[in-house]
Amino acid sequence: MPERDFDRVFNPRGIAVVGASNNPSKFGFIFYYGLKNSGGTVYPVNPKEKEVLGDKAYPSVDRIPYEVDYAVISIPAKGVPKVVEDCGKKGVKAVSIYTAGYSEEGTEEGKRREKELAEVAKRSRVRVIGPNCIGIYCPKGKLSFFAGLPLLSGDVAFLSQSGGHAEEFAYKAENWGIRFSKIVSFGNSCDVTCEELLEYLGEDPETKIIGIYIEGSKNGRKFFETLKEVAKKKPVVVWKGGETEAGVRAVASHTGSLAGSPLIWSAMIRQAGAVKVEDFEELADTICAFKYLPLPRGRRVAVVGAGGGAGVASTDVCEKNGLKVVPLREETRKKLGEIVPPLGTSVKNPVDLSYFVLFDFSMMKDCVEIVMEDPDVDMVIVHVSHFDMMMKALPTMEEIVFKTLMEIKEVVKKFPEKPIAVVLSPESDFDLEIEKVKLRERLVREGLCVFASTVRAARALSNLAFLREARDRRRSTTPP
Amino acid sequence: MPERDFDRVFNPRGIAVVGASNNPSKFGFIFYYGLKNSGGTVYPVNPKEKEVLGDKAYPSVDRIPYEVDYAVISIPAKGVPKVVEDCGKKGVKAVSIYTAGYSEEGTEEGKRREKELAEVAKRSRVRVIGPNCIGIYCPKGKLSFFAGLPLLSGDVAFLSQSGGHAEEFAYKAENWGIRFSKIVSFGNSCDVTCEELLEYLGEDPETKIIGIYIEGSKNGRKFFETLKEVAKKKPVVVWKGGETEAGVRAVASHTGSLAGSPLIWSAMIRQAGAVKVEDFEELADTICAFKYLPLPRGRRVAVVGAGGGAGVASTDVCEKNGLKVVPLREETRKKLGEIVPPLGTSVKNPVDLSYFVLFDFSMMKDCVEIVMEDPDVDMVIVHVSHFDMMMKALPTMEEIVFKTLMEIKEVVKKFPEKPIAVVLSPESDFDLEIEKVKLRERLVREGLCVFASTVRAARALSNLAFLREARDRRRSTTPP
Repeated sequence: MPERDFDRVFNPRGIAVVGASNNPSKFGFIFYYGLKNSGGTVYPVNPKEKEVLGDKAYPSVDRIPYEVDYAVISIPAKGVPKVVEDCGKKGVKAVSIYTAGYSEEGTEEGKRREKELAEVAKRSRVRVIGPNCIGIYCPKGKLSFFAGLPLLSGDVAFLSQSGGHAEEFAYKAENWGIRFSKIVSFGNSCDVTCEELLEYLGEDPETKIIGIYIEGSKNGRKFFETLKEVAKKKPVVVWKGGETEAGVRAVASHTGSLAGSPLIWSAMIRQAGAVKVEDFEELADTICAFKYLPLPRGRRVAVVGAGGGAGVASTDVCEKNGLKVVPLREETRKKLGEIVPPLGTSVKNPVDLSYFVLFDFSMMKDCVEIVMEDPDVDMVIVHVSHFDMMMKALPTMEEIVFKTLMEIKEVVKKFPEKPIAVVLSPESDFDLEIEKVKLRERLVREGLCVFASTVRAARALSNLAFLREARDRRRSTTPP
Repeated sequence: MPERDFDRVFNPRGIAVVGASNNPSKFGFIFYYGLKNSGGTVYPVNPKEKEVLGDKAYPSVDRIPYEVDYAVISIPAKGVPKVVEDCGKKGVKAVSIYTAGYSEEGTEEGKRREKELAEVAKRSRVRVIGPNCIGIYCPKGKLSFFAGLPLLSGDVAFLSQSGGHAEEFAYKAENWGIRFSKIVSFGNSCDVTCEELLEYLGEDPETKIIGIYIEGSKNGRKFFETLKEVAKKKPVVVWKGGETEAGVRAVASHTGSLAGSPLIWSAMIRQAGAVKVEDFEELADTICAFKYLPLPRGRRVAVVGAGGGAGVASTDVCEKNGLKVVPLREETRKKLGEIVPPLGTSVKNPVDLSYFVLFDFSMMKDCVEIVMEDPDVDMVIVHVSHFDMMMKALPTMEEIVFKTLMEIKEVVKKFPEKPIAVVLSPESDFDLEIEKVKLRERLVREGLCVFASTVRAARALSNLAFLREARDRRRSTTPP
């Protein structure tokens, strides 16, 4: 295997875009514009152009008279091997290849082409990411997939076999208060594998949490071994594409991967101590939870909110997702009873403040503090129901809700092992939906974990509990 | 049982609010203000006040010198029986009782009080809705729970044992393009039962679709018999609260109901030909689907969108929710191949247009039309992925997406048995989230069914298929 210098690749001194174009309907334009827009030192390569977006174009990578550590290739497949060779001559560390038409085609020709590409890469001592991928997003290294992506760095990394999921998460992450150290879209992974990238991220000091979207691996054993090692060090969240028969077929058309048995994948991911998620929302919610919330000692949850129906719904959802809505201790109920009015409410679990929150929303904070003190409670879900009614009745409620939730955030600090998940659904009439987006923005910017529904909160909390269990299990089986 | 005149109750000539107050921290204020705000002919009843919100207050209901068909009661429990008797004298058809402290308390005293209330109601020939409920929302009859609820009528009815769920749906329904004929919050249902209301709605010419949130019934047999009869006439969607052991406990504290066995409830609901849903989102999504989409002949779905990963995810989600992502016919693939560029895309099912939608989003419409023509396809999911990238790249994309989706809406008209579900996730960075709310508003106002995630679309489509199957089964077993 050629020498690996991913540090350089993620922080390149220069970037070549092969196929860079002035035509906005070409991906060569989109990549070049995106990288330039992100502040990278970028050189267009296109023998047919003198300039691209006003920058001098070069006929080939090896004719660029500056250091180039990374290249993005967006030209038809037949020209790719020659470009990889040029990159080798130039000393480029890695290329990512957007070009499709390889093994994902399902044809002999496609497979042959991919094999050839891997061989050229090896011979030229250039690492290849892809083909059929959109490469690297690394704000610190001024690498971006496309224009308009956040330029600020964070501590979450994401490895995605799908380019679409990679950019989707990059564009949407602000919603969850997530910023990235690195995202790599690795497509068909003919050379650089998910395992190798995962190993690197396991050591990467800039990465604290790792998400993975994977459709299949050519070396399942290696994948799970690496996953197990990395999961010892950092939370790893895995979303597996192709979990149904039809999904397996879709995977074959997408990245040419063999999706393998869903049941075995699920079991192996969990056995490796990584968290398995079902969809994009759960991936993002869970990473958000790992970022902002502590790991709970157990699965016993208290639900606090306004509305008996909402309490029943939350209870059902928690139990269906592996949490236990346990009875509160008598002293807890007694303390709650001192502040919660007696009628139409409940100081059992779920705690129901009913419509009294309309008149004193801060009651919510006091109740949360009381249930957090209960030794039988490992975590709390706070659902902000009746919000629509409150907002329609009294627009100043938004400030009161914000202030109370900020106070609840302070409560959390006193309980270093008890996560609190706040639930605020996005749906309302359209005017109020816009207000809710603004409120959510304020809460998220303050570092609060806000979930769009109780089921999403319950899943994320359940994943927190899983990670703690996996760690505890590891500790108890590791000789001192 | 006292005579029932629900027509009058939903369209009252006069409404009394017993306990009406000038103190905004009292529910007597909130109810009175809400009803007045909705344009109802409303009379405050409060022996301690001369005026409420500027209106002459009466010491008791029977002292109101005008017709009163409906009364809302919000006073402590001990005074309630006397008020019900007054209502009887006055000829009030029905009252709804907000007051709590009845069987939901779980005490003997609470149960006794509820029994007494039912007896007084019977004796006084007044029907009682509740107690422990928020009563009726009926925009046509100028009845509202609270201020700020939509004043326009629609064709959906909702019966909810939870007041919170009742007002939540009322406030949020615009998000799904839903308006209501009637919503009734029936709480502990000591007199007027869910079954009775359901029977009425089955005959109600203003109601086309019925949603139910129920925690338990005192007469399960009657409930299921009524459900079966009504489900023959109109789509009925049932959300059952208390589906887990802890949920059953929560239900007891909430409305004093015996939740019963979740498995039996699920089976019975489906056997009655009603659709069973799991949560509020599925309830609203499914009702939206019934309102705007036709019932499909089968469960075979085609997925059309941009992004291979999104296609894989949609496929997994469809299959997990009872839909079949079937191979497209050869002629369909051929036709798709004529407009979809060959590389990095797929004309199998899921159809993946990849990033080519950036340059020609209208391709989406042509593809949808082609897959709709495939005799093996019963329904289509269109996922608007890459939307964030498109919007960041080119703000005019919003208009192009809107125009294309409107064209897709026209396509639907040609296929009267093939529903199309459009998926547009709400998450993005916060600026774009606001743009998305505005786009969603435009789409929903044009009558498009827009789902927040593929899993939500798949569940709603699966529910459409269920209803068709139930109808077909009924037809095939009914003698001609």
